[in-house]
Amino acid sequence: MSKYAKRLKKLGTESVFEVARQANEWSRSGNTVFPFHIGDFNIPTPYRVVEAMNRAIVDGKTGYCQPPGIPELRLALSEDVGKLRNLEYNLENVIIQPGGKPTIGKFILAAMEPNDEVLYPTPGFPIYESLIEFHQGKAVPYSYIENEGDFIIDIDRLKSDVTSKTSMLIFNNNHNPTATESSPNELEALAEICIENDLWVLSDEAYFETRYEGEPRSIASIPGMAQRTVILYTFSKRFATTGWRVGASIGPKKVMDIISRLNVNDESCTNHFAQWAMVEALKGGQEMCKPIIDELHERRDLTCKILNDIKGISVASPASTFYVYPNLTEIVHRMGFNSGKELQEDILIKTGVGFCPREYFCRPIPSENQYYGRFAYAGISQDEIKEGLSRLKYYCES
Amino acid sequence: MSKYAKRLKKLGTESVFEVARQANEWSRSGNTVFPFHIGDFNIPTPYRVVEAMNRAIVDGKTGYCQPPGIPELRLALSEDVGKLRNLEYNLENVIIQPGGKPTIGKFILAAMEPNDEVLYPTPGFPIYESLIEFHQGKAVPYSYIENEGDFIIDIDRLKSDVTSKTSMLIFNNNHNPTATESSPNELEALAEICIENDLWVLSDEAYFETRYEGEPRSIASIPGMAQRTVILYTFSKRFATTGWRVGASIGPKKVMDIISRLNVNDESCTNHFAQWAMVEALKGGQEMCKPIIDELHERRDLTCKILNDIKGISVASPASTFYVYPNLTEIVHRMGFNSGKELQEDILIKTGVGFCPREYFCRPIPSENQYYGRFAYAGISQDEIKEGLSRLKYYCES
Repeated sequence: MSKYAKRLKKLGTESVFEVARQANEWSRSGNTVFPFHIGDFNIPTPYRVVEAMNRAIVDGKTGYCQPPGIPELRLALSEDVGKLRNLEYNLENVIIQPGGKPTIGKFILAAMEPNDEVLYPTPGFPIYESLIEFHQGKAVPYSYIENEGDFIIDIDRLKSDVTSKTSMLIFNNNHNPTATESSPNELEALAEICIENDLWVLSDEAYFETRYEGEPRSIASIPGMAQRTVILYTFSKRFATTGWRVGASIGPKKVMDIISRLNVNDESCTNHFAQWAMVEALKGGQEMCKPIIDELHERRDLTCKILNDIKGISVASPASTFYVYPNLTEIVHRMGFNSGKELQEDILIKTGVGFCPREYFCRPIPSENQYYGRFAYAGISQDEIKEGLSRLKYYCES
Repeated sequence: MSKYAKRLKKLGTESVFEVARQANEWSRSGNTVFPFHIGDFNIPTPYRVVEAMNRAIVDGKTGYCQPPGIPELRLALSEDVGKLRNLEYNLENVIIQPGGKPTIGKFILAAMEPNDEVLYPTPGFPIYESLIEFHQGKAVPYSYIENEGDFIIDIDRLKSDVTSKTSMLIFNNNHNPTATESSPNELEALAEICIENDLWVLSDEAYFETRYEGEPRSIASIPGMAQRTVILYTFSKRFATTGWRVGASIGPKKVMDIISRLNVNDESCTNHFAQWAMVEALKGGQEMCKPIIDELHERRDLTCKILNDIKGISVASPASTFYVYPNLTEIVHRMGFNSGKELQEDILIKTGVGFCPREYFCRPIPSENQYYGRFAYAGISQDEIKEGLSRLKYYCES
């Protein structure tokens, strides 16, 4: 057999797995690896959540549940998400998914016609670009401008890229990989563009609750936005449940009905007893997450402090996410490399530090001339942060 | 917002949920319901499987795993599936999925071009028809001919429906809803058609291990077939784990690589610790399933015995699946109805017996003139079977 569908040529992947592969290989050869490349936790799921799952199993919740999810979780989540965003959601606005990610493909299939244009962030989570194009849309990137170690969206450029074919904006506040978040003014400017051009919005809020200071903001909270916005929600980053695969699509009922029908077709339902565990997680709420947030907070401070101590690197201290995204241009030049990837591979071998160069977060726009890397600190201990970044400092300065 | 993608017009659903809705409503009004409509278990998952899951959680398996699944499960499953089918599979031939169902959409996306024709069974699992058309193919039905209470595929018709545009055959031996399985000759005839016309085959083997007598047969075992066949595998029916959502796609490495990339895009990975539980399930194997099979066996015998005792109904005793599919034509006529749906709704209200009429299993072919219904016995106790079918007998004969 040799006939495969042509659409596969458009299917991308998450090439961060490539760094993981290199790092595993390096580690298997007996080397120490400092895993700043992994967007995952080395922190266990709160025990209360595991206990609730086992109670659900004893209660017989091992059979199918309804495709949109158990009503108890949909209701609890609608209240939690609504309260934190000052919005009125109810059960009908919430469709449970096996993780945060499935919302991307399902919403695109529901709202994007072939040849429609979809605005998406670059750098950004690579699955946006991949699925827009796989499902026959045109992926139109918008970009970020560095601003004193932080980042702002190039709004003028974004605005000028809206055409009559644009049907959706994908927006990831508390942004992977830059760790930035929009100011109220930036959010208003984006909302205005979406309302004026009648765009759908996919608001990827995976890191909404992973926050060390300040208040979270959702673009859905701006008047005129909730009716056009589908929130990608996940329990993963909030409750250290990445491997559980429970998330949700949250938005207008009519889109939710479509996404629920896609659930019927794609996977029937999300793991039944894990949903009961998440009901318990929401009961625990931010109180339950506090030890996770406290630990990440210390790691963030440590990571930023040591990175800023390296000659040629300067980063802001992000208020949310578990990433920092330093500008590595000076180091790339100093070492005589021509790409962030070359630097990343050399750093892995010389120091054991794994990180993800900018190249792995969607295609660059032509005017980009700086090199960046994403350092994640959810899957690495404070001792490893200290040791790894000390080695990085030595590498950069010698 | 009012712009939705046109492709949604082609998206079907599982309308068996409609019977469930009616039955729940009837039950909430204080009536007894005999749930022959549910294709799910009232039998718990073996405790050893739950224990293995909790051990995995204690071991820290709550983070992401690799998108194709944990190597331990892929290897164990390749050995188990290969052994039962006399085929050589290894780890690379197995991609873990959140259930059996995801294999349908992913294989279609990998191998079917828009406007390709795909042969699928009617009556049959409704998601085949839905996803062929949603992904822009042409769904070409093949049908079954009743043969002394059992069913055979109308091979001549199927053969004549193959064209140069046909790219895939979807085949569900141990068939939902008819509970039939192909004779060796029928399998050979199908294989010959697929080889001659260079077709891909989706072999839905969800009920392969749910067997009371005889030996299972897979179309993939016929020479020339393994390289063109993707097996839809699920742990659900074998280990009473429907709500766990763990299954797999099994087939040629090149297709598996594509399906693994679709995993990256669609849901990252399947629940990590549930995969470790399934490693334990496979260690237990058919020994572990025996109590489940024994109970289903008794229910099958009881169901067939009472159904055959009803005037105008005659069924064969299926060697596999947990369904029986009686011809209800005489009853429909006797009651003066014009559809199986009318009969089903009347039976629910008059007797409490819920079942799924043929109408819910894909569009009929024009020549169909008999009425059928699917009675499932995995989610109903022996006492309920006795009481429910006695009421049905009274209904049919009075």
